[in-house]
Amino acid sequence: MSGNSMGLLFTVTSFGESHGPGIGCIVDGCPPGMTLSEADIQAELDRRKPGTSRHVTQRREPDTVEILSGVYEGKTTGTPIALLIRNTDQRSKDYGNIADTFRPGHADYTYWHKYGIRDPRGGGRSSARETAVRVAAGAIAKKWLHEQYGIVIRGHMTQIGDIEIPFQSWDEVGNNPFFAADASKVDALEAYMDSIRKSLDSVGARLRVVADNVPVGWGEPVYDRLDADIAYAMMNINAVKGVEIGAGFGCVTQRGSEHGDELTPQGFASNHAGGILGGISTGQQIEVSMAIKPTSSIAQPRRSINKAGEAIMVETHGRHDPCVGIRATPIAEAMLALVLIDHALRHRAQCGDVRVDTPRIPGRIG
Amino acid sequence: MSGNSMGLLFTVTSFGESHGPGIGCIVDGCPPGMTLSEADIQAELDRRKPGTSRHVTQRREPDTVEILSGVYEGKTTGTPIALLIRNTDQRSKDYGNIADTFRPGHADYTYWHKYGIRDPRGGGRSSARETAVRVAAGAIAKKWLHEQYGIVIRGHMTQIGDIEIPFQSWDEVGNNPFFAADASKVDALEAYMDSIRKSLDSVGARLRVVADNVPVGWGEPVYDRLDADIAYAMMNINAVKGVEIGAGFGCVTQRGSEHGDELTPQGFASNHAGGILGGISTGQQIEVSMAIKPTSSIAQPRRSINKAGEAIMVETHGRHDPCVGIRATPIAEAMLALVLIDHALRHRAQCGDVRVDTPRIPGRIG
Amino acid sequence: MSGNSMGLLFTVTSFGESHGPGIGCIVDGCPPGMTLSEADIQAELDRRKPGTSRHVTQRREPDTVEILSGVYEGKTTGTPIALLIRNTDQRSKDYGNIADTFRPGHADYTYWHKYGIRDPRGGGRSSARETAVRVAAGAIAKKWLHEQYGIVIRGHMTQIGDIEIPFQSWDEVGNNPFFAADASKVDALEAYMDSIRKSLDSVGARLRVVADNVPVGWGEPVYDRLDADIAYAMMNINAVKGVEIGAGFGCVTQRGSEHGDELTPQGFASNHAGGILGGISTGQQIEVSMAIKPTSSIAQPRRSINKAGEAIMVETHGRHDPCVGIRATPIAEAMLALVLIDHALRHRAQCGDVRVDTPRIPGRIG
Amino acid sequence: MSGNSMGLLFTVTSFGESHGPGIGCIVDGCPPGMTLSEADIQAELDRRKPGTSRHVTQRREPDTVEILSGVYEGKTTGTPIALLIRNTDQRSKDYGNIADTFRPGHADYTYWHKYGIRDPRGGGRSSARETAVRVAAGAIAKKWLHEQYGIVIRGHMTQIGDIEIPFQSWDEVGNNPFFAADASKVDALEAYMDSIRKSLDSVGARLRVVADNVPVGWGEPVYDRLDADIAYAMMNINAVKGVEIGAGFGCVTQRGSEHGDELTPQGFASNHAGGILGGISTGQQIEVSMAIKPTSSIAQPRRSINKAGEAIMVETHGRHDPCVGIRATPIAEAMLALVLIDHALRHRAQCGDVRVDTPRIPGRIG
Repeated sequence: MSGNSMGLLFTVTSFGESHGPGIGCIVDGCPPGMTLSEADIQAELDRRKPGTSRHVTQRREPDTVEILSGVYEGKTTGTPIALLIRNTDQRSKDYGNIADTFRPGHADYTYWHKYGIRDPRGGGRSSARETAVRVAAGAIAKKWLHEQYGIVIRGHMTQIGDIEIPFQSWDEVGNNPFFAADASKVDALEAYMDSIRKSLDSVGARLRVVADNVPVGWGEPVYDRLDADIAYAMMNINAVKGVEIGAGFGCVTQRGSEHGDELTPQGFASNHAGGILGGISTGQQIEVSMAIKPTSSIAQPRRSINKAGEAIMVETHGRHDPCVGIRATPIAEAMLALVLIDHALRHRAQCGDVRVDTPRIPGRIG
Repeated sequence: MSGNSMGLLFTVTSFGESHGPGIGCIVDGCPPGMTLSEADIQAELDRRKPGTSRHVTQRREPDTVEILSGVYEGKTTGTPIALLIRNTDQRSKDYGNIADTFRPGHADYTYWHKYGIRDPRGGGRSSARETAVRVAAGAIAKKWLHEQYGIVIRGHMTQIGDIEIPFQSWDEVGNNPFFAADASKVDALEAYMDSIRKSLDSVGARLRVVADNVPVGWGEPVYDRLDADIAYAMMNINAVKGVEIGAGFGCVTQRGSEHGDELTPQGFASNHAGGILGGISTGQQIEVSMAIKPTSSIAQPRRSINKAGEAIMVETHGRHDPCVGIRATPIAEAMLALVLIDHALRHRAQCGDVRVDTPRIPGRIG
Repeated sequence: MSGNSMGLLFTVTSFGESHGPGIGCIVDGCPPGMTLSEADIQAELDRRKPGTSRHVTQRREPDTVEILSGVYEGKTTGTPIALLIRNTDQRSKDYGNIADTFRPGHADYTYWHKYGIRDPRGGGRSSARETAVRVAAGAIAKKWLHEQYGIVIRGHMTQIGDIEIPFQSWDEVGNNPFFAADASKVDALEAYMDSIRKSLDSVGARLRVVADNVPVGWGEPVYDRLDADIAYAMMNINAVKGVEIGAGFGCVTQRGSEHGDELTPQGFASNHAGGILGGISTGQQIEVSMAIKPTSSIAQPRRSINKAGEAIMVETHGRHDPCVGIRATPIAEAMLALVLIDHALRHRAQCGDVRVDTPRIPGRIG
Repeated sequence: MSGNSMGLLFTVTSFGESHGPGIGCIVDGCPPGMTLSEADIQAELDRRKPGTSRHVTQRREPDTVEILSGVYEGKTTGTPIALLIRNTDQRSKDYGNIADTFRPGHADYTYWHKYGIRDPRGGGRSSARETAVRVAAGAIAKKWLHEQYGIVIRGHMTQIGDIEIPFQSWDEVGNNPFFAADASKVDALEAYMDSIRKSLDSVGARLRVVADNVPVGWGEPVYDRLDADIAYAMMNINAVKGVEIGAGFGCVTQRGSEHGDELTPQGFASNHAGGILGGISTGQQIEVSMAIKPTSSIAQPRRSINKAGEAIMVETHGRHDPCVGIRATPIAEAMLALVLIDHALRHRAQCGDVRVDTPRIPGRIG
């Protein structure tokens, strides 16, 4: 468990560098008997794929997934599902000049001191490309959660740099390159991102991901709280610098009389808790927000040092996302799915046969 | 690993209910040969202890810790260190009337549906009292980190409700009941908390915890990132609803040219990263902020339901903190210490003999 | 997970030294709602207790267990169950002279080199006394397995030194101090053990433990095989040097036509597999045998070295079992119970809803 | 951790079915900076490869390994090393008729009841072919252990069916198809195996694997004892039914005065402990023996049932090893290497800086 596995019962173990032979993972613990094909996974991968608009990296990575094991005659067998995505667009020359330098905001300096060696091609293991693996694994989790419990996991951007994006409708999210849930903001976002790109700069973002129909009772009480595992999962996404559940940092100025969600026979009167109390799901919508830092790779000259410790200037050319947050929505959805399926299985193990007479109240009433 | 253990190599396994015989933990993995006494642990427990001012709960819990194992002639032996804190102030009558109801903002409803049974005395396992155990375990971690690496872990309140508290000096933090690092704010905080208490309400808070002198190279690259494990640890503290590393949510509106910390031979030029890049420590100060929700137990009438699903009103009397955030500072410090010692040991295991010629640059230069 | 925890979902974390304040454990993952009292656990502890006949150590350790958490109004709550056994008979003077020497066959030399420090009182952490904790935790597992599945776990001695003890009846096992299942052998065993004791020596033993009514389908396919986890559990018992499943070493000279258990609609025709195929339970009796080395503490002079590396002679006086195997039966039963409950929960998590039309055939037909 | 991973710090996660696209694993936790190539791994795989003599299966599986990640410019980077072995000889027709039946001695019946689905091609996940993955992963562990500590891990057959094979010389082991360490026995073994094959039967075996130059102090004291982890690892090998450390079952009839290895300044006087005391390595040779059952697939008619529970007869034709034990030697060596490297890293984490003045005595003196 040297930092490349996640999940206790539904475990994803990841491998691969950006510009090596390929990336992939082993998904262990998937219940048997679920229909699964490469197309199911590919659909999610395509949502994260680069090159889909001028506002994301222009790299061409088809990200074609191959299932190597664990599926027989179209169904999961309960044994490990290995997924392989061969790398195809390996223009190492784009990165050749950085092998002896440490780019600001990148993991170069820390990898070098930790391991004494690093694969500089495309950021190696620290590349955001690794996140394709999570989307692939998350697709399996999403499918199972939906089939077993009707759980729906969705995300959308709520802010890009200075532009806030209100929620209008889930229907809009797939219609624009920004995962924006408000069509009226798309023109402004296009112009904003064009200006960022022209200034050879990048910008941060904020996104929100939710899960509907999660049953009450998932999550552990003290250390593997559902919210803690979600925070862990999201902060494991490259570039995430903050995570909120429900009211999040808004709770700092709230009073107890406002924050504590009242219960009524018709449902909870509010959802400041974000669907989790005492580390355990309430049956309300699970609601998570996160902050994603601006892309570190920019074409402006910046101060740094080389391996000898000498002052240098670096500019990072190449094909970079001007806002890495944009393509992060499917990743955040995948991570939420991976946390939920793990807790679904943990719940079945310890408390699967618990039955109480108390009615389970529905989600928010208004 | 059913949700009551934390840490891979320095593992804390917690037990106990608020009003049962006692609470405690087993600390497994502490390196041998460190001097350790109950007094070392008690000092940290006393910082979290209730009843120290009128702004915290008036319960009297001496929280006296007993070391049951793992220490011989004043030194750790490398075997498990069991800690026991007997409960003494068990006024169960304060809570007797809530056994059939679910208090808003509490874990009552979720525990009941998860387990089909709950210990209603003082919140049972979900009580904030359990956090004393983490402070005790964290004291051991803190001591080791300081002795081995000179690491200093400190926290302070940065906001209580509407009042922001700037950082002035670490020296002030221990001089007031609010863990405030600015003496000039104490009078305002006193008045503010008195008004909250008189209105039978509670309020949220924000605190910041930092670690100095952490070496470069701790943390795993993909899933057990140092920042992810910190987010996990903090979100495992009762009432925490948001976690930030470094710039946190401030990064949403930052440009890449601002956020990415430049490197110079004299040190990093800034610390927006909060001391972590690619999941691995940079050698700069580790910086974490968190949001803590207002206490759920308030003496105002609130809507809820009982076990039969019927509408009722509940008021929670008893001796509750009007701002649970206040006593959270030592807990957050402990959690940060527990994460850091685990990664210190993981680093020794895999990369302990890595040596590079590149100079390690110091922390922020200005 | 520094070597003092066992189990993935039903996790036992142990602490304590032979002559420190106490020993105990935290049992995490026990399903909620099971009736449990200290008497349930004490009954198993008393089977292992020293001083019950002249053939075991004459130490007086009442081994009284206290439940510190996880049980409310006589039922498990699903939260951690902490168990504490205070040490009472701490005659440290018996062991005082060994602090600077390494006793042959003991862990003194290895602990010293591993940790650089050791608690010499009664063997400290390496004392067989620690196994009381496993018996206590195993009692909880045994109770749950019996209530949920009707599983019965029993053990008996099959050989002490040169005397083989055939199986006659489970009814006899509790009627003699040797856990022998054949009353006709008891006189010979009494005489044999008296002679061993008089010669100031000790002797090895072999015991067998079985589980009836284990459902088909428990165990993992490749690494956490049911038989592998059993072998792990048994070899974790002090003094065990060999473990067999089913035919065990007898399979070396078997032919495939003999060893492979045939299936018939009436049941399996034999049980050479010991109830496990491909790492997964078959529904037949789980059958395990193990070898237990002779007690290392004997009152004869033996060659050794001291901390300075100089040659010395050591004799170990005190109150030692002349055959540690005798009291190992309840320990082995407990370990088997701990493995089975963990796999029961793992099975529920991943495959709990699997249903096939194929009839489950009963155990051995003849 | 659903049963396809092994190791806490040096973790191998396995995937793949016998006749699917391929088998492989992810090795996580390998220290950085070790030279590693596919040739290093291939050499070990070739020792296990089928088709090398008439006494093993005639399947042609080149078992060519591809390193997909974790190695850059010929050195390990500290990130996950993914290994892929594509399946090439997939004659599924050999196995087509068994999809609805359960072969005696096979995992068919247990997989079916556990998962409700199984991949019948070549035994699917339960195929001995999966063990190639362990040999590949073990090759990495072996190399590191040898380079860092001079550890040498070797195995040899000690018995095939009725023929015992004394140890004469390590030099002979590679010179015959039986991994026999005594050249004088090879003719008898050839004749014996020919007769087994002609009788359409199979036979069991016993093998021994040892590790030299293991430092004193590796292994955990209570649950993850070095011997327990070895027993776990070996029992995880398909067909293993018994495991012994040192004297093994021979200790049952030993006296304490014989079994307990005396210490002298010149070294231990014997090694009945098999190099492990109290779960921790002594610095002597680690010595393990195991029993391997006869191949279950034989061409004789045997009683069984089909999925409908009806009585049938099955004969297993195809290309099977008449003694699966023969090719198990490299697998057992690999498993021992995997256990040792994991404990090497665990030791570095907790006790890596322990130093004592006491001389470490050498291994057995005579």
